Amino acid sequence: MGMDYSAIKDWILREDSFDPEKLGKCEAVMSLGNGYLGLRSAAEERYLNETRGLFVAGTFNKFDENEVTELPNAADMTAIKLSVNGEIFSLTEGAMEDYARELNIRTGELKRSVIWTSPKGTKIKAVFYRIVSLKRLHVIAQRVELTPLDADVKIEIKSGINGKMTNTGSQHFSDGDKRFYDKRVIQFVQTTGQSKIDFVDTTVHKLALDGEVLPMEAEVYIERREIFAGYNVEVKAGQTLSIEKYSTVYTTRDLDAEGKTAADLQKLALETARELEALGYQALLEESARQWEEEVWNLAPIEIEGCEMDEFAVHFAQYHLRLMVPAHDARMNIGAKGLSGEGYRGHTFWDTEIFLLPYYIFTDPKTARKLEEYRYLSLPGAHAKAAHNHYKGAMFPWESAWLDDGEVTPEYMDVDILTGKPNKVWSGFIEQHITSDVAFGVWQYSVITGDEDYMEKYGYELIMDTAIFWASRLEKGTSDDNKYHINDVVGPDEYREHVNDNAFTNYMAHWNMQKAMEYYHLLKKEKPEIFARLNEKLNLEEAYPQWENGCANLYLPVPTKENILPQDDRYLSCRDIDLGKYKAQEHVGGITRDYNLEQINQIQVSKQADVLVLFFLLEDIFPQEVKKASWEYYEKRTLHDSSLSLSTHSVLACDMGEMEMAYDLFRKAAAIDLGPFMGSSNAGIHAASFGGVWECVVYGFGGVRMLGGRLRINPSLPEKWTKLSYTIIWKGQKLAVEVTKDEVHVTNLTGTKKVEIEVNGEARIL
Amino acid sequence: MGMDYSAIKDWILREDSFDPEKLGKCEAVMSLGNGYLGLRSAAEERYLNETRGLFVAGTFNKFDENEVTELPNAADMTAIKLSVNGEIFSLTEGAMEDYARELNIRTGELKRSVIWTSPKGTKIKAVFYRIVSLKRLHVIAQRVELTPLDADVKIEIKSGINGKMTNTGSQHFSDGDKRFYDKRVIQFVQTTGQSKIDFVDTTVHKLALDGEVLPMEAEVYIERREIFAGYNVEVKAGQTLSIEKYSTVYTTRDLDAEGKTAADLQKLALETARELEALGYQALLEESARQWEEEVWNLAPIEIEGCEMDEFAVHFAQYHLRLMVPAHDARMNIGAKGLSGEGYRGHTFWDTEIFLLPYYIFTDPKTARKLEEYRYLSLPGAHAKAAHNHYKGAMFPWESAWLDDGEVTPEYMDVDILTGKPNKVWSGFIEQHITSDVAFGVWQYSVITGDEDYMEKYGYELIMDTAIFWASRLEKGTSDDNKYHINDVVGPDEYREHVNDNAFTNYMAHWNMQKAMEYYHLLKKEKPEIFARLNEKLNLEEAYPQWENGCANLYLPVPTKENILPQDDRYLSCRDIDLGKYKAQEHVGGITRDYNLEQINQIQVSKQADVLVLFFLLEDIFPQEVKKASWEYYEKRTLHDSSLSLSTHSVLACDMGEMEMAYDLFRKAAAIDLGPFMGSSNAGIHAASFGGVWECVVYGFGGVRMLGGRLRINPSLPEKWTKLSYTIIWKGQKLAVEVTKDEVHVTNLTGTKKVEIEVNGEARIL
Repeated sequence: MGMDYSAIKDWILREDSFDPEKLGKCEAVMSLGNGYLGLRSAAEERYLNETRGLFVAGTFNKFDENEVTELPNAADMTAIKLSVNGEIFSLTEGAMEDYARELNIRTGELKRSVIWTSPKGTKIKAVFYRIVSLKRLHVIAQRVELTPLDADVKIEIKSGINGKMTNTGSQHFSDGDKRFYDKRVIQFVQTTGQSKIDFVDTTVHKLALDGEVLPMEAEVYIERREIFAGYNVEVKAGQTLSIEKYSTVYTTRDLDAEGKTAADLQKLALETARELEALGYQALLEESARQWEEEVWNLAPIEIEGCEMDEFAVHFAQYHLRLMVPAHDARMNIGAKGLSGEGYRGHTFWDTEIFLLPYYIFTDPKTARKLEEYRYLSLPGAHAKAAHNHYKGAMFPWESAWLDDGEVTPEYMDVDILTGKPNKVWSGFIEQHITSDVAFGVWQYSVITGDEDYMEKYGYELIMDTAIFWASRLEKGTSDDNKYHINDVVGPDEYREHVNDNAFTNYMAHWNMQKAMEYYHLLKKEKPEIFARLNEKLNLEEAYPQWENGCANLYLPVPTKENILPQDDRYLSCRDIDLGKYKAQEHVGGITRDYNLEQINQIQVSKQADVLVLFFLLEDIFPQEVKKASWEYYEKRTLHDSSLSLSTHSVLACDMGEMEMAYDLFRKAAAIDLGPFMGSSNAGIHAASFGGVWECVVYGFGGVRMLGGRLRINPSLPEKWTKLSYTIIWKGQKLAVEVTKDEVHVTNLTGTKKVEIEVNGEARIL
Repeated sequence: MGMDYSAIKDWILREDSFDPEKLGKCEAVMSLGNGYLGLRSAAEERYLNETRGLFVAGTFNKFDENEVTELPNAADMTAIKLSVNGEIFSLTEGAMEDYARELNIRTGELKRSVIWTSPKGTKIKAVFYRIVSLKRLHVIAQRVELTPLDADVKIEIKSGINGKMTNTGSQHFSDGDKRFYDKRVIQFVQTTGQSKIDFVDTTVHKLALDGEVLPMEAEVYIERREIFAGYNVEVKAGQTLSIEKYSTVYTTRDLDAEGKTAADLQKLALETARELEALGYQALLEESARQWEEEVWNLAPIEIEGCEMDEFAVHFAQYHLRLMVPAHDARMNIGAKGLSGEGYRGHTFWDTEIFLLPYYIFTDPKTARKLEEYRYLSLPGAHAKAAHNHYKGAMFPWESAWLDDGEVTPEYMDVDILTGKPNKVWSGFIEQHITSDVAFGVWQYSVITGDEDYMEKYGYELIMDTAIFWASRLEKGTSDDNKYHINDVVGPDEYREHVNDNAFTNYMAHWNMQKAMEYYHLLKKEKPEIFARLNEKLNLEEAYPQWENGCANLYLPVPTKENILPQDDRYLSCRDIDLGKYKAQEHVGGITRDYNLEQINQIQVSKQADVLVLFFLLEDIFPQEVKKASWEYYEKRTLHDSSLSLSTHSVLACDMGEMEMAYDLFRKAAAIDLGPFMGSSNAGIHAASFGGVWECVVYGFGGVRMLGGRLRINPSLPEKWTKLSYTIIWKGQKLAVEVTKDEVHVTNLTGTKKVEIEVNGEARIL
């Protein structure tokens, strides 16, 4: 009951029963999209507990001065109210047979079918199809087929555009202008309250009876925030009524809308509506499915032999990795829930650089570059944040939205279970490692792709500018060790607030400054023009001695005699409690219902990987025995209460040779959204965890790692798998990797350039 | 099925079946309130098509610059989510027996009961009780009784405060501070976006098993815009679990909150919550029911013998007339839908003076005075509107909200069925008769009550100031009749826009100026100090000759040779069409789906009473033959597409001696909200029509009329009625009137002063 994996060999995720109390899961994990539009898969007929959602990448708006900016939930165009002989079609009433909802991740089509018997006994077969076109970014197409099985019926349809949608009650849009054309095409223009982005929503219906188009005028209804069309059709038993609905969204924030007014977009949308209607649903589906094939499945094929479910899991990750990424526009980035829900408000976190970027870098470098251009374009916000905090350089916001928004982390969230008062969210103030994460992303992108154009235009500057921040951030400790410290931060592990010398933060800051020094020399020597430009802009000559001094004197936590790298200056001295209950929990965050954050801070417990992410990013600076001992120490104390955690632990487990544990953690990571638990994805899918699934497969079992500028492939397959194939792009050359238990085949598919890699410790030239 | 009138002799309106598609009707007509709070009677369990609504009188807010200010839909505190052994209690699932919802209009209590069998077969009896206290303006109290009938069950309760409510998608509130005290009392502070009114919502639950209080801590959940408490209780078969929920709303707009902060109100609300909990539901019900008895039923008793339904209808009107009136605060007035829905946005229209004021004047003069003080307090808006339109004096807004808002009629509404573009709403610009309606209300109030204090402080000034407007409004016509005209207006009949010399408008303007002249002389002679003050303020000496000139030369439409008074200068020359279809329509407004407004303007058709309202207000200036002929002419052409129309026609029919027609129209007027049609009250009850029902009974059949400063009583009962008794207050003396077919008894209950009245043409001194 619930999720059904019986059709995964056909790339199909199914839901085989309908529970009106648990709608959020499939709305999110079966959502459709194309990086511009993200559409939750709420049903055509409406339900009390649904969360309908349509998001357009980058269209941030701030509801009021007490809220942070967020991606607004746009007007809904997918609802279609059907009544059969006056009885409303709804699966909570009457009876149903043969219910199934299927997401075909290969074609991007959602299908839902049911035989429904109304409370009064009318039996009807209903099939619903839907796509968000990957070929036409603005287009949603739907097709509904209704076949009365026993008797002639009168079907009433009410369908249109509903601007009453909110983000959990916060309304981002004006009740704009509604109008219709020829009593057929209906249009609604709304504007966001603060960011003043115009949304032009347009929809048109095409009805046919047994394939014969019905030339009908709609009865048009206009209400507050709503415009819809009404149709009445008599359908004989056995006949099939099809309703196709073509909807488009254009906004004045669109990259290609520059200089255009809402009126221009209205005209364009009207023309498009007529074009879509002429094409029809089937043609739109086919061209979109072809686009999926070309753009995703042919581009980055992955095959796993030995476990269909694992193969499906990584394809499912790839499906969502395409939905979430605004590949069309560098002015926006990936939200922590993609475009599949309002969780985390569409904001971008370190998730992009650490958990998502590797997938795009290795499979779709053009898109990866867009993600990294975004960080450059959002430097104004990073400068503002640094200045506001009396630091220098670029201090990246923990949560990032529109380019000049700067820090957008909410200041308060939830309530302290002891005091009954709101909890302050410290991440936006002191979770500062994001700045070196951004720099790390730049470096990773440039080394793997070899994209020197990016580095010259954006990358060197980003690394210098972030290093300038770190140099200004260091502080003399209260101890008399004469070292620099980074006090009062939150590291990756968000269960520990206000810690000093978080290992991840300190080592990454050190890395960031060192990388800047390295590039300083490189530019001065090899690219003097760029050096001169950046020196004028950032005063590198003044910055360099500060980096040098910072690197020399920054305190870097050292492993204990038991080889444990201390997560921060207090972790190892906190008390240990029995975490069994929370390690075995079904829902994350159980500990926060028993202890408030102040109390959790006194316990040796981690929400998520912290020190281990450091081992993952900078694996060559710690000896294996430190990594091993620390891995064992922290894994026991980590609750994986963040979806970012499992994949890191899985990849590290591969590195430790703990293959059973690695596989177990991978399966858990893959189950975060794909698994059978019906409550965990309501607010949207877990974007980073999809990147993590790919990392488990290609970094972990596939053994791929970029290390000190070199590519190494040290695969080790889980017991169940007999073969793993994947492609990666290294320095512009697409390599096909085939791993079996015995062999590793690597082929250079591009072959325009020789590349040197290391496979299981041996150098190969391809 | 649906509305059930079997218990009306016990003052109870019932609903005997549940239709999840038709919830709006009972939500509105069974709504609860006290003039401060208005609460729609949506169920405790939520439904897809519900319209939950909680309104606090006078708390207007403007969502954005494209909308007009409106009464915001406050956070919901009445929803209670129940599950029985994990199955959600909902009447759309499983099976039900013995469903009934009952509004007791005598006590103001709503009760709903059902025996529900869950889909899995668990049987439970559920009874829900609810009041909005008439004694404590800020208080909502609920009681739920749950009795498992067959088996022991586990009941889960989730209940709290939900700030996701909107006005059809427009969100007026911030997502404010949520907190709880002692894991029991929960509180939510929200602020309106533009008017910056703080709302402090507080709720606390008390659970008991078979009367034994359960001392339980709640599990408190905090979400975006929501805070709620969770409880789990095991209930054995046959035991009754009761859940009492006490909720309060305080706002910084409250009259007694002046100088108080939200924090002060939070403290007050917390104390109140504890006090209410100690009192319990039953005590709160009893004190509120006593208040209903004292304040309404003893104050203004009406009895009709011969038809229980008619008696109930007038009591039902009185019930709603109490709910809708902000008797506690002169800074606000009655909305066109009372506090029972968001229709007409809580705005005040001419409905107050023409259809509602008579009830309050004759039964509760203190409250009537508040309504008329409101008009004085909102003079700043009326001056602003006059100045904006280059007129002088006080030009009252067609739609009125907060005191200084001025005109708040929306500028566009609906869409032209021919062009597909939005329709301009002309009322706010040119429906100008509201200004003389306000003056008429002042005069009516002062003559019937004899409240000279009101006149001296507010009334004389209002009549002078409105007359100054009219004098500035008159224009020389294009014809060379040398008369003044009032061109380009909308009269009461809103199907006719941009008409010239609307009879109602011209006669009432004339009356307004004449009344000002009369008071000019009176004040100059008898109250020279007041004259001096007003002369200084309004320059009466300059105004007087303009009134004199205006009255002498204003064109007043004259009846045709067939004795028809022309509604305007074009009505009688428009074409007649067959209106049969629309006269017989089930839903109002049918003609607007066939013709656009421009076309309707060319047809002899009226939305509502127009000329006939003039006969009603100024009955002594037209001879009977004109009234009779005009009544017959216009009644045929009036679609009663406004709820203001039927009662006027009914009262006029009484005056014409058309008793059968009068009774028929009265029954139709009474059925507007009380009748069995399930679709007509969704956006709220029709406030004016309740005043109209009282007018039908007391003015029409009861024969009461104030005419030229004198009270006359000329009753004529419908055939069915054997006796009608009512009370009216005339010049401070409460008179009990008993009408039978043969006699009219009038008793002076107060008896502190002799009053002279006229009964069936004969003078009586009481």
